[in-house]
Amino acid sequence: MSRIPVAVVGATGAVGQALVAALHGHPWFTVEALVASERSAGLKYRDAVRWVLPGSIPPDVADRTVLDVTTDLQTPIILSCIDASLARELEPQWAQRGHRVFSNASAFRLHPTVPLLIPEVNADHYALVQYRESTWKGFIVTNPNCCVAGLAMALGPLTKRWSLERVYVTTFQAVSGAGLQGLAALPIADNVIPWIAGEEEKLQKEPPKILGWLQGARVVDYPVEIIPSCYRVPVRHGHTLALVIEGDADMTPERAAEVWQDFRPPDWVRQLPSGVGRPIRVWTEVDRPQPALDRDEGQGMVVHVGRVRGQAGRVLCTVLVHNLIRGAAGAVLLNAELSVSLNPV
Amino acid sequence: MSRIPVAVVGATGAVGQALVAALHGHPWFTVEALVASERSAGLKYRDAVRWVLPGSIPPDVADRTVLDVTTDLQTPIILSCIDASLARELEPQWAQRGHRVFSNASAFRLHPTVPLLIPEVNADHYALVQYRESTWKGFIVTNPNCCVAGLAMALGPLTKRWSLERVYVTTFQAVSGAGLQGLAALPIADNVIPWIAGEEEKLQKEPPKILGWLQGARVVDYPVEIIPSCYRVPVRHGHTLALVIEGDADMTPERAAEVWQDFRPPDWVRQLPSGVGRPIRVWTEVDRPQPALDRDEGQGMVVHVGRVRGQAGRVLCTVLVHNLIRGAAGAVLLNAELSVSLNPV
Amino acid sequence: MSRIPVAVVGATGAVGQALVAALHGHPWFTVEALVASERSAGLKYRDAVRWVLPGSIPPDVADRTVLDVTTDLQTPIILSCIDASLARELEPQWAQRGHRVFSNASAFRLHPTVPLLIPEVNADHYALVQYRESTWKGFIVTNPNCCVAGLAMALGPLTKRWSLERVYVTTFQAVSGAGLQGLAALPIADNVIPWIAGEEEKLQKEPPKILGWLQGARVVDYPVEIIPSCYRVPVRHGHTLALVIEGDADMTPERAAEVWQDFRPPDWVRQLPSGVGRPIRVWTEVDRPQPALDRDEGQGMVVHVGRVRGQAGRVLCTVLVHNLIRGAAGAVLLNAELSVSLNPV
Amino acid sequence: MSRIPVAVVGATGAVGQALVAALHGHPWFTVEALVASERSAGLKYRDAVRWVLPGSIPPDVADRTVLDVTTDLQTPIILSCIDASLARELEPQWAQRGHRVFSNASAFRLHPTVPLLIPEVNADHYALVQYRESTWKGFIVTNPNCCVAGLAMALGPLTKRWSLERVYVTTFQAVSGAGLQGLAALPIADNVIPWIAGEEEKLQKEPPKILGWLQGARVVDYPVEIIPSCYRVPVRHGHTLALVIEGDADMTPERAAEVWQDFRPPDWVRQLPSGVGRPIRVWTEVDRPQPALDRDEGQGMVVHVGRVRGQAGRVLCTVLVHNLIRGAAGAVLLNAELSVSLNPV
Repeated sequence: MSRIPVAVVGATGAVGQALVAALHGHPWFTVEALVASERSAGLKYRDAVRWVLPGSIPPDVADRTVLDVTTDLQTPIILSCIDASLARELEPQWAQRGHRVFSNASAFRLHPTVPLLIPEVNADHYALVQYRESTWKGFIVTNPNCCVAGLAMALGPLTKRWSLERVYVTTFQAVSGAGLQGLAALPIADNVIPWIAGEEEKLQKEPPKILGWLQGARVVDYPVEIIPSCYRVPVRHGHTLALVIEGDADMTPERAAEVWQDFRPPDWVRQLPSGVGRPIRVWTEVDRPQPALDRDEGQGMVVHVGRVRGQAGRVLCTVLVHNLIRGAAGAVLLNAELSVSLNPV
Repeated sequence: MSRIPVAVVGATGAVGQALVAALHGHPWFTVEALVASERSAGLKYRDAVRWVLPGSIPPDVADRTVLDVTTDLQTPIILSCIDASLARELEPQWAQRGHRVFSNASAFRLHPTVPLLIPEVNADHYALVQYRESTWKGFIVTNPNCCVAGLAMALGPLTKRWSLERVYVTTFQAVSGAGLQGLAALPIADNVIPWIAGEEEKLQKEPPKILGWLQGARVVDYPVEIIPSCYRVPVRHGHTLALVIEGDADMTPERAAEVWQDFRPPDWVRQLPSGVGRPIRVWTEVDRPQPALDRDEGQGMVVHVGRVRGQAGRVLCTVLVHNLIRGAAGAVLLNAELSVSLNPV
Repeated sequence: MSRIPVAVVGATGAVGQALVAALHGHPWFTVEALVASERSAGLKYRDAVRWVLPGSIPPDVADRTVLDVTTDLQTPIILSCIDASLARELEPQWAQRGHRVFSNASAFRLHPTVPLLIPEVNADHYALVQYRESTWKGFIVTNPNCCVAGLAMALGPLTKRWSLERVYVTTFQAVSGAGLQGLAALPIADNVIPWIAGEEEKLQKEPPKILGWLQGARVVDYPVEIIPSCYRVPVRHGHTLALVIEGDADMTPERAAEVWQDFRPPDWVRQLPSGVGRPIRVWTEVDRPQPALDRDEGQGMVVHVGRVRGQAGRVLCTVLVHNLIRGAAGAVLLNAELSVSLNPV
Repeated sequence: MSRIPVAVVGATGAVGQALVAALHGHPWFTVEALVASERSAGLKYRDAVRWVLPGSIPPDVADRTVLDVTTDLQTPIILSCIDASLARELEPQWAQRGHRVFSNASAFRLHPTVPLLIPEVNADHYALVQYRESTWKGFIVTNPNCCVAGLAMALGPLTKRWSLERVYVTTFQAVSGAGLQGLAALPIADNVIPWIAGEEEKLQKEPPKILGWLQGARVVDYPVEIIPSCYRVPVRHGHTLALVIEGDADMTPERAAEVWQDFRPPDWVRQLPSGVGRPIRVWTEVDRPQPALDRDEGQGMVVHVGRVRGQAGRVLCTVLVHNLIRGAAGAVLLNAELSVSLNPV
């Protein structure tokens, strides 16, 4: 089949770069438009971007002229990795004009008829798009915050077997999670910063929707209390999460480890181009996972769980997620692939 | 008064260096003996040590010959920063011979008649020394693990007002906490390591003793459950702790912040040479404390509390403690000063 | 005497913060105006600044309202740490209006009648101000680039004794050298960046002027060829320089070390409030200086020289300079102090 | 063909781990023996090693019992990554017993009849093995120091066209270059260390041999003077080198870049399993190469050259080499492959 043209909006940022890299040689999609802010518009992509990924800019896009974010885009699919405030304005316009918008922005994640997806966990929520705003010919599909991508992936399989009551989560977030503009080098050098703007709210609000039940035109939230503490640490890529999961008395560390070990996504999900056969890897080595060693496994799409311990009713563990891939660019792409597989363009 | 001679045992390690530096110009104590392992014995201190602190080795000790750890020491006071296994063997021998041993090692922290002290919090526990082993002419006084130094300092004032039930603590521990030999450079570069040998046990067991009540010849543990998760992060000095403190329903974040703000140690404690007037600093800035900025305050003896938030009965906060000073060398020294002030040599 | 009011322009940047901190309790100067870009103007300083230095914002300035950079300033002295492009526009206007401008910007460093000063090395160049532009009632005095501050301090004493022909310099520059906006966290994490915009040019052009001879209304450049290679490394503060200095055949490593060891600035310079008695510290320890250990010596005003080695006619060494203090804020302040001591306001 | 059994000596170190990883699935070789110090001998490899590489220990070797370094080995090929002092003792013994020893140790690099190889540069030096010590039934082949691996690869192609007179080299060496035991975490945190024991000597002595001419039973050194300055920086992997290359007046930056760009190893070398088609990559982007982005290219076997600039007779550039792969494990392996391709076991 001929490849489907996509636009990458926010193409010069860290997530945009990861998308551009992942789309190089993608079997279904081809980059047609690279879109960024006014400051970059009109430049060649190679001159507009400060490339921060391994290797060179893919040669087929390096000389493309970057379009302004207000350009009237023509691609059926828009991959959006812009700021929430801009997303709030532009994404509904794109949806109205008939585009399928796959967004990494937080703007519409909690919108009642916009799916907030981790395909391995809640692909069925995709059905929400049929109840979308009446003025939208297209639609918006979102992926969660980069920490939530790891957190909800870990919690998802547990919720199929036990009731979870409360989750304490402390994060160790890599600098690439702040994007290229969001964090200067000086503040985080040799440092830990005990606060990330808006992050803890996202960790509280997004998992209940992801883990919730689809009931007709809406999702009933999963009733779990999340108690988050978000920290930035001087690590390049890979968010580490320290979890304490409290729930049913028959949830033991051993059984939880088994559930994670046995977890497999539906076949049709793992066979998507960005899918992985086993999206959760369980470690028994006492000092793993570690971001420097494990973040890139499965092209960054594997979520790692280790140090599973605790007691009946209270499971502690460490979760590692590649924030830029599973937590952002890879998630956008997987959602787009899911959409096309269910509903060809 | 003439200064009291002390021996620093483990003088070439990171904590030993911090002690040597702190003793330079100390008003009460003077370094008489520098003691280390067989490998260093016989060398000049300047040749035996790989100095990792600001400035040069204090000139008055740089050319001292390092003594072997088995040497028969003559100083009334021994400051011990050796490994637990060696401490288990040597410290009782020193106590038997009549030395006052102030130890940073974990070996005897939980011994029923050995005080485990944070003078600002439980100076009264010092009285335990009168119930010491009958064969000991001298005694051993210990200070807590470097994370516990911050944790118990933060919890102490709260226990005077409320009952605490449960504390979830996730640590971000600096590399100097592993000492000079305990951690190689490669594993922690650009990394987070989700495990530190033996650390979580110490966090569970030491605070109940520190926060407990002296009853005659023993301490009744404070009945709080600690749920610890210990991580190493690539930071030079300063352990950061993310806490969730659960307890009485009238413990609110605002009131807890007030209690910390108002906390003052007894006058006689804060007037010790290593004492500080306000050992807890409360931050209202949303992104503080930070190790790179705040660890050195009060010569490293201040414990910082920030991001106080939560709800009635559940207080969340960030704690920062200089692991090498308040958590080790400074704690050893403060205990020695406390002892001498109560009971002159 | 009553203290002289000064304006800090660029007060929210990293250098501006260091100036504000250094002016707290300064014996001669008092901060009257805090000036920054339009974005910050009108805010309280505490709200406009992202504080990246130890301790809190000095309380006497925390609640000051930040002025816009276009404000008509009233202080006799302006301490300027703004970008070169803005400096090029504003600093001559200030000079015309009669202000004494002490500037960290590169804009006028090479201007023939603007002094480029390291007071310990070329205080006599201050006399250039008398030949300033005829329209300037006030004047501009500049300090060198942060690497040049260390480089020229090291070369200065050698030029009094030998002819230097050529200097190869490779830099290891800390992230704070890029300021708060100049470098994002992601690019430098776990990385070395082999290029810093405009830096190598400055290293070539500034030292010849600093080391040159005052001849009436101009400086005759010192004829040394500088071959620079500038690199950014993941270090918080402190620029390290690897030097190879080629010159007269009787310049040996031993003699060069002696010259550095014996170097003393003129009494009237070292007695300035920001002066230090021995601005060059020579290390014989084989692995010093190190930024993490040595940058803060003398409140950051000491330049360190170590690993002095080589052969007759070719001296190799390591130089360390605190880029934010000796290389920026401290240099601005020392120049202002020099000016006031020579020519009271 | 059936695969040739090899022994990895020093298998628990950082280089040993990289060898074990590279041998997993190797088309010619299979790991038969894992050898380490007495401390590890008798343990399973998984228990003896602190794994610091991505992914898990290859399952086919994880449960092997580690042999003591004094074991009488039976494999025709020994891959040696032990310390120089131990190598000095053991490697000749192995050679005497008929083993082919491929060594990463410095002990015999300068021995007149032991080849010091970078196959792409001086594969002809392999012929030295025929002139080996008369008591050796087998032989020793060495690869250079990890920095020299990059330096001599860069200089090699230039020497075919021009005479080089002098090379100034300043290194930015990653922590993995010190191995697992060679550098503690604390000294290098937030720091630059201006000295590495023994390193500068190696940089002076090894390149002349590698770049020299084979004349019968010996190599005539290439007469270039190397002026090295070696620094450790807080980077996980990848040594960066800042070079100034002085030589013939017709050596211009443009021509040097062309020579590097056009460089191709002999076909039979690049077709070895660890060979790469283009072992030198030339960058024109102004801020490349960077270790975090580029070290892994070509499985770590590519040497990067960037920032080529200067003037006629003096070329400046940046070189990046993956110290653990091209500079150690990959070099050992490539030498073993070269040997087997020339002279089947």
